[in-house]
Amino acid sequence: MEERISNGSFKILDLIADVRTRIVNGEDLRVLDPAELTFRNVNTKTDLDECRLHLARVRSYGPAAVSVVAKSGTGKTTMLEKIISELVSRGYRVGTVKHDAHHFDIDHEGKDSWRLTRAGGSPMVISSPEKMAMVRSHLLGEMSVEEIIFRFMTDVDIVLSEGYKSGNLPKIEIHRSERSPELLCMSRDGTILDHRLIAIASDEELPSPVPIFPLDHPGPVCDFLEEQFLGGA
Amino acid sequence: MEERISNGSFKILDLIADVRTRIVNGEDLRVLDPAELTFRNVNTKTDLDECRLHLARVRSYGPAAVSVVAKSGTGKTTMLEKIISELVSRGYRVGTVKHDAHHFDIDHEGKDSWRLTRAGGSPMVISSPEKMAMVRSHLLGEMSVEEIIFRFMTDVDIVLSEGYKSGNLPKIEIHRSERSPELLCMSRDGTILDHRLIAIASDEELPSPVPIFPLDHPGPVCDFLEEQFLGGA
Repeated sequence: MEERISNGSFKILDLIADVRTRIVNGEDLRVLDPAELTFRNVNTKTDLDECRLHLARVRSYGPAAVSVVAKSGTGKTTMLEKIISELVSRGYRVGTVKHDAHHFDIDHEGKDSWRLTRAGGSPMVISSPEKMAMVRSHLLGEMSVEEIIFRFMTDVDIVLSEGYKSGNLPKIEIHRSERSPELLCMSRDGTILDHRLIAIASDEELPSPVPIFPLDHPGPVCDFLEEQFLGGA
Repeated sequence: MEERISNGSFKILDLIADVRTRIVNGEDLRVLDPAELTFRNVNTKTDLDECRLHLARVRSYGPAAVSVVAKSGTGKTTMLEKIISELVSRGYRVGTVKHDAHHFDIDHEGKDSWRLTRAGGSPMVISSPEKMAMVRSHLLGEMSVEEIIFRFMTDVDIVLSEGYKSGNLPKIEIHRSERSPELLCMSRDGTILDHRLIAIASDEELPSPVPIFPLDHPGPVCDFLEEQFLGGA
């Protein structure tokens, strides 16, 4: 491979001539690997972050990660609070990543930690006996949720993210009919619009190829998360 | 070594019988290694964190780290702000860790991020296109400053910490005579009380074996930090 690179031969297909190959039928592979995770195209930084997170998970040092998505005003944070509390009460370590499209403001103006950030300190960490907080600028552009998890959150069982609508994590959609009859990831006739959708929490019945759970209590969604991602019954 | 462990022979000196050894005189070693970093006793978790940080630094993926210490009310944060601004303006990436002995409060009550932390999400990360913030509980007890740097801050040039008075990082003491005639790390006659002291920023002249820099502007302290830790002139 090194020789081909130094000769300027960059096509991956040319490499096949140099190595022992065996042709595998796509259908045969899907029997063993239904989610088609074995071969991946890595073109962008985000593709690479996804692979890293997947590998970390396979090697058991990365957490499971699921995105909770909804139209704004659906009560996403409220449902997420309930799911987090329930999973924590079941003994899991639950990390959470909230995506904010705008400018968020977390520290209190005038505090020492705020002053150190304002002076240009990044990351700025404040640590006490019970907890720590970190604020850091994205000098190299916004970090993907996969990179955030891979760099800062490998010591939890599951990460629930909020608001990464166009991201590639498996998704649970929160649906409240009063807010809107339409969903983000599925048509009302049950046609999947986003193939990352794995479940829906809804206040109404809908035809759906993915499981639908109640919106008013988090137990059934948590049972599903345990079963799918946490090695539960 | 494995065999000795499984036989219950835990003394490190017994191991010498099994390996090729060469006796090195302490004085000869100090010529090559004046800071005596080659051999270290690792008894506690903190000792281990220090070694990791040192190794990371030697292998060039860890930042330099210096503690800024002072009696409370000396104007430590003000001086630190000036030093950070100056180093950032010289093109360095400067991380900062503030130690808080009490309970700090960084998020705004009622915000989504605050609610996710309250529900038990830890780490809780909020990320926008420009920056991210993380709040996490110290489930396994307070993290040492070395562990914080090693886990979360390896991508900066230097970390300046504030308030780790009893820690083992190299220290710069801020001294303002109006606040107190006494210093933390040195007597007024120039006797070193804390051998981690590497410099003083002071508003008065003092006999001292370590360099003394002015308190009113950060240039000279920053020159010293560049020279000692950042490969500067």
